[in-house]
Amino acid sequence: MHTIFLSEIPESASTIRVEGEEARHATRVKRLAEGDRVRVLDARGKMLICTIAAASRSLELRVEERHVVPRLVPALHLFAATPKGPRLDKMIDQLSQIGVASWTPLVTDLGVVDPGEHKLERTHRIAIESAKQCARAWTLDIQPAASVVEACRAGGDTIIADADAPAYQSTGHPELRLLIGPEGGFTTREREAARAAGARFASFGPHIMRIETAAVAAAAIILNAERPHHPAYASALDPGHTEGD
Amino acid sequence: MHTIFLSEIPESASTIRVEGEEARHATRVKRLAEGDRVRVLDARGKMLICTIAAASRSLELRVEERHVVPRLVPALHLFAATPKGPRLDKMIDQLSQIGVASWTPLVTDLGVVDPGEHKLERTHRIAIESAKQCARAWTLDIQPAASVVEACRAGGDTIIADADAPAYQSTGHPELRLLIGPEGGFTTREREAARAAGARFASFGPHIMRIETAAVAAAAIILNAERPHHPAYASALDPGHTEGD
Repeated sequence: MHTIFLSEIPESASTIRVEGEEARHATRVKRLAEGDRVRVLDARGKMLICTIAAASRSLELRVEERHVVPRLVPALHLFAATPKGPRLDKMIDQLSQIGVASWTPLVTDLGVVDPGEHKLERTHRIAIESAKQCARAWTLDIQPAASVVEACRAGGDTIIADADAPAYQSTGHPELRLLIGPEGGFTTREREAARAAGARFASFGPHIMRIETAAVAAAAIILNAERPHHPAYASALDPGHTEGD
Repeated sequence: MHTIFLSEIPESASTIRVEGEEARHATRVKRLAEGDRVRVLDARGKMLICTIAAASRSLELRVEERHVVPRLVPALHLFAATPKGPRLDKMIDQLSQIGVASWTPLVTDLGVVDPGEHKLERTHRIAIESAKQCARAWTLDIQPAASVVEACRAGGDTIIADADAPAYQSTGHPELRLLIGPEGGFTTREREAARAAGARFASFGPHIMRIETAAVAAAAIILNAERPHHPAYASALDPGHTEGD
């Protein structure tokens, strides 16, 4: 089912008009027409299932179903060093698909890429596009950069990805932070600061991983390991997506 | 440490000569010189740690350490539909980094890409390049295409990624096969054939995932879930990579 993104979904309207790029894309590229069903998201939990009532330069949608999708629990906040070039875009898209709550660029002693305002704006657009592709009701949040000390200070359960550490142990904590270092790793200073702040160290694979692969693998492992602790995990799934648990 | 790939590592030589592209890359691009240490891999478990004894158009290496790295257990064989274009290359690179044993292009009822000889040859080169990057002693194998029925017939423990199935349960089986369908999913015919062949269905995330994201997330989750069953998992790690388990 094609997904349309609206920055504002009216509270109780029975019909919705869609104009501009979203309407053009639906009719010209996706070739949708009267009678086709579409999904409408606002990136903050609202999800409508609609039927196209009229399609020309704009779209007129008839609202069939109205859902409020809760945020996924546990919320996994990723703090990762910024990979270079297109690797960042791909990372954001993959993190969005696997259900990570937010990405914060992690400023580290050995990190080399410092994402500017322009780059963060682009990753936000990629997160919206990805949410449409994977029918995710809450868009992955893009946060301003933070240091290792700031990331660890935020409270809750913090995990540091470290090749030499033991396997990840689940805790059932509803709010988790995962720190992925740059290709050169964390410095002793950073490790000690993290340890002093109560962070846990865990490893997520047998080989050396690039930032974006480590981020995706570790996040998938953590969300899956925490899943049995959260009966609401299944209810956070998108309407129509049921689980046989 | 820079890694050099040789298709043949001599059994007991104390010095090794490296010529051609690998030598040129080490000296011209990586700017390595006499006295620098390098890792030498043959893609089939042999790993040497060497010191550069002389560097000109060719490299002369003095063998310092000689390791035979066992294959990672469990061996996770991935059968995935072929993503389009550069997404396939990226998938192979990521699967290699997370420790998947092999990739077989999965021919499915709704799959659209049929990888030709040329494409399989290219993915093999990417697997070697990735093994060098992540210091992986055994290169990810690229297998000839197989259908769902053929994949399930191979015996052992087979897992089908299915968004509607329960969470993955570990089994401790040393040989696992994971099937990832195309973006359109598996057909009823394929599901029934898999079920009849004894395959298990499991889900690996809360959202719709593209082939390559599903493959990487599911493989990482499975390897991590099986890890406690295999005390040898840590010993399959590359020399110098120790675990605090």
